Amino acid sequence: MKALRYYGPRDVRLDIVSEPTITNPNDVLISPQWCGICGTDLHEFLDGPIFCPVKPHPLTHETVPVVMGHEFSGIVKAVGTSVSSVKPGDHVCVEASIRCNTDCPQCREGRTNCCSHGGFFGLSGWGGGLSDLVVVPSEQVFKLPDNLPLEVGALVEPLSVAWHAVRLSGFKAGQTALVLGSAHDAAKIIVSEPAEIRRKQAAQFGVHALLNPQVDDVVAKTREMTGGDGVDVSYDCSGVQATFTTGLHTVKSGGIAFNIAIWGKPCYNPNECLLMEKKIMGSIGYVGQDFADVIKAFEQGKIRNVEKMITAKLPIAETVSSGFSRLIHHKDDHIKIICTPHPELLP
Amino acid sequence: MKALRYYGPRDVRLDIVSEPTITNPNDVLISPQWCGICGTDLHEFLDGPIFCPVKPHPLTHETVPVVMGHEFSGIVKAVGTSVSSVKPGDHVCVEASIRCNTDCPQCREGRTNCCSHGGFFGLSGWGGGLSDLVVVPSEQVFKLPDNLPLEVGALVEPLSVAWHAVRLSGFKAGQTALVLGSAHDAAKIIVSEPAEIRRKQAAQFGVHALLNPQVDDVVAKTREMTGGDGVDVSYDCSGVQATFTTGLHTVKSGGIAFNIAIWGKPCYNPNECLLMEKKIMGSIGYVGQDFADVIKAFEQGKIRNVEKMITAKLPIAETVSSGFSRLIHHKDDHIKIICTPHPELLP
Repeated sequence: MKALRYYGPRDVRLDIVSEPTITNPNDVLISPQWCGICGTDLHEFLDGPIFCPVKPHPLTHETVPVVMGHEFSGIVKAVGTSVSSVKPGDHVCVEASIRCNTDCPQCREGRTNCCSHGGFFGLSGWGGGLSDLVVVPSEQVFKLPDNLPLEVGALVEPLSVAWHAVRLSGFKAGQTALVLGSAHDAAKIIVSEPAEIRRKQAAQFGVHALLNPQVDDVVAKTREMTGGDGVDVSYDCSGVQATFTTGLHTVKSGGIAFNIAIWGKPCYNPNECLLMEKKIMGSIGYVGQDFADVIKAFEQGKIRNVEKMITAKLPIAETVSSGFSRLIHHKDDHIKIICTPHPELLP
Repeated sequence: MKALRYYGPRDVRLDIVSEPTITNPNDVLISPQWCGICGTDLHEFLDGPIFCPVKPHPLTHETVPVVMGHEFSGIVKAVGTSVSSVKPGDHVCVEASIRCNTDCPQCREGRTNCCSHGGFFGLSGWGGGLSDLVVVPSEQVFKLPDNLPLEVGALVEPLSVAWHAVRLSGFKAGQTALVLGSAHDAAKIIVSEPAEIRRKQAAQFGVHALLNPQVDDVVAKTREMTGGDGVDVSYDCSGVQATFTTGLHTVKSGGIAFNIAIWGKPCYNPNECLLMEKKIMGSIGYVGQDFADVIKAFEQGKIRNVEKMITAKLPIAETVSSGFSRLIHHKDDHIKIICTPHPELLP
């Protein structure tokens, strides 16, 4: 079968490999239909290997080359003898995290996204979404509701990351939020984003105010829009000193500066946290509950129009030449690019 | 009357000043009996002025010299016409924070300790506890229970700082805690403290394990004592890079690294906060509820034996020559030194 595999920095190849098969009664064989390109994929391509294992991964026992793609939807082709949650023909998406489930304190508490030995399908081995077939344990396979197209199903994984962060931050209906670098019933959502395409996109999703940090004084304008107090929660999706500082300065006393991006260097002066009793939190990925919640939100129409986030559709053979290339060189023209192993699905 | 006043670094004088009088129907005239020396007093003495105002304080409108002492108990001498909560002769302690109450977003939300214009009796003007008399608004005067000696009443203020931090951190019965730089129904309290006198002291207050960071691997031992997980909350009372790092490393995934000390420089790499979804919080001072809670805890016998924390009693004339001096040069021999304007109270 075809599989896009990561070998090392700037070395990703569309290989022909043997098909995976069901070996465990709990396995589900899936034919990926659409797979998103994630910022993490670009990091591996440009600066990796970061997540991709150069020595055997503690759970998959694989090393590079590994199949890429962790934001994917697909159609069930076959199931193991003990699987009853899905059946062949079902449209599904995959909770891509790989975790020990039992061997570490985090997994024992249900924080599988913080697993000490963890990894991801499409990065750490066991196959990925940028291929013709993949085998996934049934507890990580989520059936898509009938009203959800498969191409939108590929967005469930990245949306679950945001959903998890909002849930963990304890954000409540009626509170105010500032999203740095582009959410639930907020009284006021303010988005600060330098790229025009992302500002336009945010405008379609119920955002109350759009700021351009290259022009606006985000701290002053945010305080002004919240009666001088600041927002209840800021979500930093960029992970640079400027957004960290803005996020911490714009939350009200007792508020939460929430970090979603991975950081390169220390940046924090704890005094602001003390003197205004602000909290700093962070989150990584998602757990199964977030996947189920996102899918339910789609089903109930609470998450809508996300297909507008898809700015390009490509065959997996063009993932690197066209997909990675556009996201690296024309970053500000794109939000989500999705790929398919089935060229007949392309417009 | 006598009043110990701060003029500037290493310049504190026992002055004779005019007596304060009740000018507002809400005022309470108090005769301070015992007043603790706080680390903040030493900071002002050695490196100040920090809190002491060199230009008029926004609320007290005073500048140095100001009367010192914010950890004090006393006896009510007179009350304004509208005061019914206390009467002459009552033993009381004072919530020392000065706040605008109405003009800033923090005070409007009840976070008076984060007041934008805030300060402290005994640092920012309006008198202090190291004097013969002080006038305080009645809502900041708390009656001591009958079973509480006045010298212990002087410890209510510093204990309220710790109480506030524990309350804000959401610490629950049965959880585990690590206190860095020496708490409620904890399943396990571990204290890491380099000074022997403080380790001995901690041993008398129900601590489950005592570590010496100069000898022990605090992170490894703490994990070992908590089944490999780490503690639910770490409280950093030191505010240096070493304790910050230890605090963050020893909390479990999803746990809280809580900061109580004021910091000199940035020290934080947000990635640990993300990858293990730990939270960083901080607190400053206390609000009225904490004062009331601490006094109630004394009354109910939940806080006991704190008089053992008092390592010296001095007349206010010796606050600097003996008190500051011992705390600066023999820091590790002392925990709390309290002073009185009434030499007849001394042993």
